[in-house]
Amino acid sequence: MKKQSKRVKTKSKRLGVWIVGIGGGVGTTVLVGTHFIKKGLVSTAGLITETEIFKPLNLVPLDNLVFGGYDIRTETVWENAIDIQRQTKTFSIEFLNQIKDDLDKIDNNIKFGTTINCGETIEKLATAKLEKNDMPLYEMVKIIQNDLISFKNKYKLDNVIFVNLASTEPFNEKFLNVPSANSLEELEKAIKEDKRDDLPASTIYAYSAIDCGFPYINFTPSIGSETKAMQELAIKRGVPHMGKDGKTGETMVKSNLAPMFIYRNLPILSWAGFNILGDRDGQVLSDPKNKATKIRSKDRILHNILGYSTYVHTAIEYVPSLSDWKTAWDHIHFKGFIDTKMVMQFIWQGCDAILAAPLILDLIRMADYSKSQGEKGLMKHLACIFKSPIGIEDHNFHNQYQMLMNYVKKHSFKD
Amino acid sequence: MKKQSKRVKTKSKRLGVWIVGIGGGVGTTVLVGTHFIKKGLVSTAGLITETEIFKPLNLVPLDNLVFGGYDIRTETVWENAIDIQRQTKTFSIEFLNQIKDDLDKIDNNIKFGTTINCGETIEKLATAKLEKNDMPLYEMVKIIQNDLISFKNKYKLDNVIFVNLASTEPFNEKFLNVPSANSLEELEKAIKEDKRDDLPASTIYAYSAIDCGFPYINFTPSIGSETKAMQELAIKRGVPHMGKDGKTGETMVKSNLAPMFIYRNLPILSWAGFNILGDRDGQVLSDPKNKATKIRSKDRILHNILGYSTYVHTAIEYVPSLSDWKTAWDHIHFKGFIDTKMVMQFIWQGCDAILAAPLILDLIRMADYSKSQGEKGLMKHLACIFKSPIGIEDHNFHNQYQMLMNYVKKHSFKD
Amino acid sequence: MKKQSKRVKTKSKRLGVWIVGIGGGVGTTVLVGTHFIKKGLVSTAGLITETEIFKPLNLVPLDNLVFGGYDIRTETVWENAIDIQRQTKTFSIEFLNQIKDDLDKIDNNIKFGTTINCGETIEKLATAKLEKNDMPLYEMVKIIQNDLISFKNKYKLDNVIFVNLASTEPFNEKFLNVPSANSLEELEKAIKEDKRDDLPASTIYAYSAIDCGFPYINFTPSIGSETKAMQELAIKRGVPHMGKDGKTGETMVKSNLAPMFIYRNLPILSWAGFNILGDRDGQVLSDPKNKATKIRSKDRILHNILGYSTYVHTAIEYVPSLSDWKTAWDHIHFKGFIDTKMVMQFIWQGCDAILAAPLILDLIRMADYSKSQGEKGLMKHLACIFKSPIGIEDHNFHNQYQMLMNYVKKHSFKD
Amino acid sequence: MKKQSKRVKTKSKRLGVWIVGIGGGVGTTVLVGTHFIKKGLVSTAGLITETEIFKPLNLVPLDNLVFGGYDIRTETVWENAIDIQRQTKTFSIEFLNQIKDDLDKIDNNIKFGTTINCGETIEKLATAKLEKNDMPLYEMVKIIQNDLISFKNKYKLDNVIFVNLASTEPFNEKFLNVPSANSLEELEKAIKEDKRDDLPASTIYAYSAIDCGFPYINFTPSIGSETKAMQELAIKRGVPHMGKDGKTGETMVKSNLAPMFIYRNLPILSWAGFNILGDRDGQVLSDPKNKATKIRSKDRILHNILGYSTYVHTAIEYVPSLSDWKTAWDHIHFKGFIDTKMVMQFIWQGCDAILAAPLILDLIRMADYSKSQGEKGLMKHLACIFKSPIGIEDHNFHNQYQMLMNYVKKHSFKD
Repeated sequence: MKKQSKRVKTKSKRLGVWIVGIGGGVGTTVLVGTHFIKKGLVSTAGLITETEIFKPLNLVPLDNLVFGGYDIRTETVWENAIDIQRQTKTFSIEFLNQIKDDLDKIDNNIKFGTTINCGETIEKLATAKLEKNDMPLYEMVKIIQNDLISFKNKYKLDNVIFVNLASTEPFNEKFLNVPSANSLEELEKAIKEDKRDDLPASTIYAYSAIDCGFPYINFTPSIGSETKAMQELAIKRGVPHMGKDGKTGETMVKSNLAPMFIYRNLPILSWAGFNILGDRDGQVLSDPKNKATKIRSKDRILHNILGYSTYVHTAIEYVPSLSDWKTAWDHIHFKGFIDTKMVMQFIWQGCDAILAAPLILDLIRMADYSKSQGEKGLMKHLACIFKSPIGIEDHNFHNQYQMLMNYVKKHSFKD
Repeated sequence: MKKQSKRVKTKSKRLGVWIVGIGGGVGTTVLVGTHFIKKGLVSTAGLITETEIFKPLNLVPLDNLVFGGYDIRTETVWENAIDIQRQTKTFSIEFLNQIKDDLDKIDNNIKFGTTINCGETIEKLATAKLEKNDMPLYEMVKIIQNDLISFKNKYKLDNVIFVNLASTEPFNEKFLNVPSANSLEELEKAIKEDKRDDLPASTIYAYSAIDCGFPYINFTPSIGSETKAMQELAIKRGVPHMGKDGKTGETMVKSNLAPMFIYRNLPILSWAGFNILGDRDGQVLSDPKNKATKIRSKDRILHNILGYSTYVHTAIEYVPSLSDWKTAWDHIHFKGFIDTKMVMQFIWQGCDAILAAPLILDLIRMADYSKSQGEKGLMKHLACIFKSPIGIEDHNFHNQYQMLMNYVKKHSFKD
Repeated sequence: MKKQSKRVKTKSKRLGVWIVGIGGGVGTTVLVGTHFIKKGLVSTAGLITETEIFKPLNLVPLDNLVFGGYDIRTETVWENAIDIQRQTKTFSIEFLNQIKDDLDKIDNNIKFGTTINCGETIEKLATAKLEKNDMPLYEMVKIIQNDLISFKNKYKLDNVIFVNLASTEPFNEKFLNVPSANSLEELEKAIKEDKRDDLPASTIYAYSAIDCGFPYINFTPSIGSETKAMQELAIKRGVPHMGKDGKTGETMVKSNLAPMFIYRNLPILSWAGFNILGDRDGQVLSDPKNKATKIRSKDRILHNILGYSTYVHTAIEYVPSLSDWKTAWDHIHFKGFIDTKMVMQFIWQGCDAILAAPLILDLIRMADYSKSQGEKGLMKHLACIFKSPIGIEDHNFHNQYQMLMNYVKKHSFKD
Repeated sequence: MKKQSKRVKTKSKRLGVWIVGIGGGVGTTVLVGTHFIKKGLVSTAGLITETEIFKPLNLVPLDNLVFGGYDIRTETVWENAIDIQRQTKTFSIEFLNQIKDDLDKIDNNIKFGTTINCGETIEKLATAKLEKNDMPLYEMVKIIQNDLISFKNKYKLDNVIFVNLASTEPFNEKFLNVPSANSLEELEKAIKEDKRDDLPASTIYAYSAIDCGFPYINFTPSIGSETKAMQELAIKRGVPHMGKDGKTGETMVKSNLAPMFIYRNLPILSWAGFNILGDRDGQVLSDPKNKATKIRSKDRILHNILGYSTYVHTAIEYVPSLSDWKTAWDHIHFKGFIDTKMVMQFIWQGCDAILAAPLILDLIRMADYSKSQGEKGLMKHLACIFKSPIGIEDHNFHNQYQMLMNYVKKHSFKD
């Protein structure tokens, strides 16, 4: 009986989704895909939370999501959708026409964000006037929190999930070492005193959301809620959060394949991976500073899974003609019996936004579920969705998936 | 204290290994590799049982193995080793020279086998006079058992493991349906009455070994000990056995990769795999009848892991110039979010015998261990080593490996 | 001055194109692509005759083509176009809508063809009632010729080019050996006496067209105008013709790559090629009888270019999910200095109809040009467009292209 | 009659070969391979000059070559050969043993070279004491010329060919712009006045050889005899020379494949090529300064063949485990009919030294032939062997090969 009442409640629940970078390829694909599914135009392929095993959790239906967010460009949702349709052919024009009204409505919920400490390459992408950039930090936080609360009130939302899909910020060791990274007290002081050189945009956003009690998801390699200070805040405010860097393509395959070599005691001599892609993300990554953040995230994985050091080379190159169709070639050189050298190669041809978008929806639903269960802090059971899952050392994809399955099973028999 | 005494015992144990097809590529590589390792010329790469986790089991040292077996060709071990060295360059001539004496000694333990019901293609490979072929079945069994017992006595062996590495027999549904396949009583009757059309060579060998109490390993896709009757016999005689068809290349990768698509809810639209190879095994598989047995073994796996039916095509072609360097190209077509079609391809370039040989040694040691533990019947914990593990439905490579790890851990803390 | 008058004439010329299999993927793509170009919606990529060097020939403009033809299915041009759009995404719906009226008009010029001697697999594809199938041959020829002449008169066409794009007929040695294959006299006798087992549909069509004085192009591996008898007819009637089997994908690459190994004296040890595709053509080729015709056409090329015999394996497999996106993997094993074995592999991912269609347009324009120049018989200068160019032994793609360039240059300076 | 006398002369001719970098992978492979062929142990695969068409030129037999040269390391020829055997398995130990005496004799003809202006990375490779480095330029030239003449006298050689196989020098625009690059007078002045910052080692060597009348071959991307001043010198001294940068792997394939896209009017959208290799050459190229010279040489080719600008990315990465087995993955994105994007990819797995060595022998024989014919200056007919053939604009491999064939044919009918 209790279970039934709960299910009813979930079905009528309205969940807000506030996305930083809502106009990007992944953000737009989340919006378009959700509405295609609502209209029954496409299958639910790619959504883990739509598989049988998740049924007992009664996650919020996709129909009940309401979208809003920040961007730094002026295009409308529709314009972004049409642009992707032209570039990647992943959307059908006929289907798009059927959801145009729904997409247009989202425009009302989109505001301009900030590019503070995002570096020149990202700043150049901005076509909107970013007024937040000129505010002191405490003001910026207040405005962001206002935006979130107004959004919640306007749509009478039960909860809002805050998602970071913005372009990768340039890597800067500093942001992990400043005092404000290491204690919540210092963090709050830094905001109050407007120490604007110490906080990247992703962390300002994360602070604003979590401080308000909204679950936070960081799908990018930027710092977001990774610091000790932010983790403290999440516990204090009773908020679930997780990140970082969605595991969608080459790295997913890597974390799946590397264990095989362990299972057969075939030492890896070298693993050279080359990624080519042509979307705005690729453009940002062609700046060596932004690329560093990404590759840092990719490289650690192999050493972790293998348990020994080997020769790893990972490259990301911008090839405009590919648009969002990221192609990766990995050459794996390994040693077998009698020290014989052998080779495995793979070629991955996937559309990045298409691979990422359903995972965002999975994360949103699971974050909302955690919140409803009174969980707080890192949602470690979601490790399998991230390249650099915060707080998790095991990068074996199978073990990570098992963790998620265990969580789901545990909660399935809970009520 | 108990543990220590046991370790001592294992160290002084002498284990016999009797291989059908000892002169083939895999057999020869087992012999050469074991002696290279004994002499410290090469690492133990490829051997699962040499990894840290297996230490507590005190498996029999590779130094204590004594080899013998059957073949249908007249070449000496040395001639076979030189031939492989020329074809695949996996052995070094310098190293071979250092173990020549050891290899020469094995020649004394090699006898001519039988090709009964092995089909024309295999028969054509035989260059030796196969006297067993003309005997009635009961006589053949007696001779085989005599060979095994003499081998054991001659070298004062503590145990003998019987391993089938012979060329793949042609697939014949009949051998699984005759009365002698389904009851031990009928099987023994068939032997007594010389129903020679009802039993393939692999089953005659398996019967002979298990009936004598010797653990049996079937590394080929042939029937061997797969029938209900043979499983009955193994239980009755208290003998561990396992098969079939070693998982060494494309199929290993398949059973490792397919789960990834499940973990992300990415439906497989089609999986087309093409294998090219050029060794004697490839020659035998170029006969459609023998190939059928192999492909049957390969195809079932995907459907099992995915849990739904998809379009699977698997081809094996004989390309002589490759010799034992089997190359596979797999094209995996899958569907993601918004029903978008994407592609992953892999190319596998491995030396078959090099991949198979260490697994044989792993199986031998584990079979001996099971026997010493009083286990009998199917060694299901070894499923991860086989394409068609008898008695195991789960083909997910990770789950299978976990089964082995669980077995090892359980036994590590046992004493 | 003469030149200018000619250019004017070409510009006002109306050229009919009569296609057997007009409703297939290639046929439909020819229709759609031509109209897209007319409307300026797409570039002229893929069309050789649109490159600079062809300018002086003043070929008939694409705007002046009028289409008609035969098919064995009842779908309209529009239905076929929409079907391809859904399957391969190569057409844009927006663009299609802009040419709908033009496509609809073509429906008036489409009649039902014949499947005589085309084998069961092709017969099964037929959804229309094929009345021609029941006529005696002489009647069938008369009707076909009537169709062509009515088409010409209806649109006041200056010339009509007859193009075979029908599914590959099953290979039957017989059709090349019957008396009617070897002398025109016997051929005409066979038609008169209705020896209907001796002529495949492709040859009946070719006879009808050439006998009427219409240039004939065979883009399929079927026999068409290949026989001695047909070649005699073309000379007698003063008609240019050419075939057979368009060189669009793997074979094109093969005939381009193989010479490289000659240029460096790197002997090919083996060349194994695997093609997977999923369109109706793939479906027909999944019948071993029809596949044989195709592979026969593909295999000869390598031996011809290399000048020595090597191990060649070519496979074509039907993988429905790929639709028209044919994917090929070729593994080329070669020997270098000190007899060292090395490997080159390529993967080709092309849309078959997209690769074929512009070549059809090139052939049509060049056939019309030849006719206008008073040329007759085989158009050997078009060899580079065919897998099995009739009358040409040299399969080196570069040499073949040079032949075309020489023809074009010769004719450029002619007037 | 005249012809016969000539053939006799060629057969008894003794040709000296002086190699800079004789101890490197390519140099060692030239030595080993030549002696394997002399002894009849291997075929002449890889040698263009051993194909039928070259017969009438009566090139100097491989048996008559005498080797010497410079290096900057202290290993003997035998040590180098054994090292390669271990790393790449391209030599057989059995065969090596049969030519050990011959290899040992070459040690007498090896002297230490110079690393002047070769950059730090190359300097670090030097294990020998390089006395030439401290000499003024005019002294250095004198010593080099002395070495060459002593070598010639010692073995009573009819001619000596000077070959540059040293590691790639770092690219420095300056060396092409200094006065000494642009006039022979200035060059000779620079040597006399010891302007040691203006000349890279490769040019000093080239000057020394050509000034003495010895044909010069530059198989590396270094400058060598490329400057206007050096070309002047070659004409003045009546010496044939050619370079630069041997076309052995990915670039060879590129210059073979790119024309195909022209032949079909398929515009290239992007061409991304990734090379991984692990030999000493790879180590040197891992220094960005040295890599620049190489990539500069690789990139120009595509634009030249295509005739339009496209997006080209070429990477070379050092992956030690591969040793000399260079592997390249090229992703070619192109546009077809109806602006459809399609993809071709290739993977090249070749052993660099094995691919290069026979071309060195071809060049040596052809340079000697040119000299014997009284030819001087650039040997443009050898363009097909170089990535950056000096004085040749056409990079189409087929056209380049045709140039060579034309030369050979012209000279075949000359006498």
